[in-house]
Amino acid sequence: MHQKLREHIEKIVPLTDDEFKFVSSHFTTKKFRKHQFLVQEGEPVKYHHFVVSGLLKLVYTDDNSREHIVSFAMEDWWESDFYAYYTQTKATMSLVCLEDTEVLCLSLEDYRKLCDGLQKMERFFLEKANFGFLGAQRRIISWLTSNVKERYEQLIRQYPALIQRVPKSLIAAYLGVSRETLSRLSP
Amino acid sequence: MHQKLREHIEKIVPLTDDEFKFVSSHFTTKKFRKHQFLVQEGEPVKYHHFVVSGLLKLVYTDDNSREHIVSFAMEDWWESDFYAYYTQTKATMSLVCLEDTEVLCLSLEDYRKLCDGLQKMERFFLEKANFGFLGAQRRIISWLTSNVKERYEQLIRQYPALIQRVPKSLIAAYLGVSRETLSRLSP
Repeated sequence: MHQKLREHIEKIVPLTDDEFKFVSSHFTTKKFRKHQFLVQEGEPVKYHHFVVSGLLKLVYTDDNSREHIVSFAMEDWWESDFYAYYTQTKATMSLVCLEDTEVLCLSLEDYRKLCDGLQKMERFFLEKANFGFLGAQRRIISWLTSNVKERYEQLIRQYPALIQRVPKSLIAAYLGVSRETLSRLSP
Repeated sequence: MHQKLREHIEKIVPLTDDEFKFVSSHFTTKKFRKHQFLVQEGEPVKYHHFVVSGLLKLVYTDDNSREHIVSFAMEDWWESDFYAYYTQTKATMSLVCLEDTEVLCLSLEDYRKLCDGLQKMERFFLEKANFGFLGAQRRIISWLTSNVKERYEQLIRQYPALIQRVPKSLIAAYLGVSRETLSRLSP
């Protein structure tokens, strides 16, 4: 499992064996079954998660108990309620398995230790954060400029593998429309 | 002007005088008049900009020549077409002054040199990138969960100073509605 993490990090920064041993020692492996929660709204958020295998949804539930999909996460993605993790406040979202899932967990303390101990890892996280911001900005632009049908088509183009694995009702909750509206748009 | 940058950076990482001298040497000062472009769609993007004074809009223009506001930027904010800057591709957005504006400019080469030369600056940019991501995620959540009226009220609460300085037609273009719709919602 840690080998996958190494390949993932080395796409951005090369590591010696000793450096990877140091990095690897900060992560713990966890396995979850479909429907299990990695983060629960209202609870503290212990970890940032690197997805080794499986599929997750990051969910915001509004005052009317309606579920909104903030994000999906699959292999090679990082996911958490990052605000709650980073500011050590309680989760306002939940992170839930859509499939059996294996993750590598990193506590905030270990995230800090990694950045302090190895500048390459600070570089790695900076690159991930910059591209995370750009992904979110792209979604905002798509929302400003496109109708639901166009946003759905963009999503299919951008993440074809994801669309195969996620139920239509959740795609609708990600796009901010009802299941019925999405059905009318489906090719 | 550089003193403002120092105060801004020191909210996240403390710097010695020598360190700040090193940091400061990577920035150049530029002044622009209202209506001038710092970034022009279709052109290369030379700089990331730290706003010392003034107000800017980051604009995406769609195929029907309709302007969408991706972001505003005022004092203490960083702004650019960051994707084009970071990947050294041509701008897909424009960055335009809404007021006379002073900025400190940082080229990508100097951004890399700063991060390589002083780990504290890599830490600083990592913090800014993480909070930039979280700001974008909050806007996405607001879009998923709230109607236009609620989004407008959230914007007023979050950036009261901004609302005073920006024409209503641009607030509408930021919220993704027409000027007429926004007028009906205004208190």
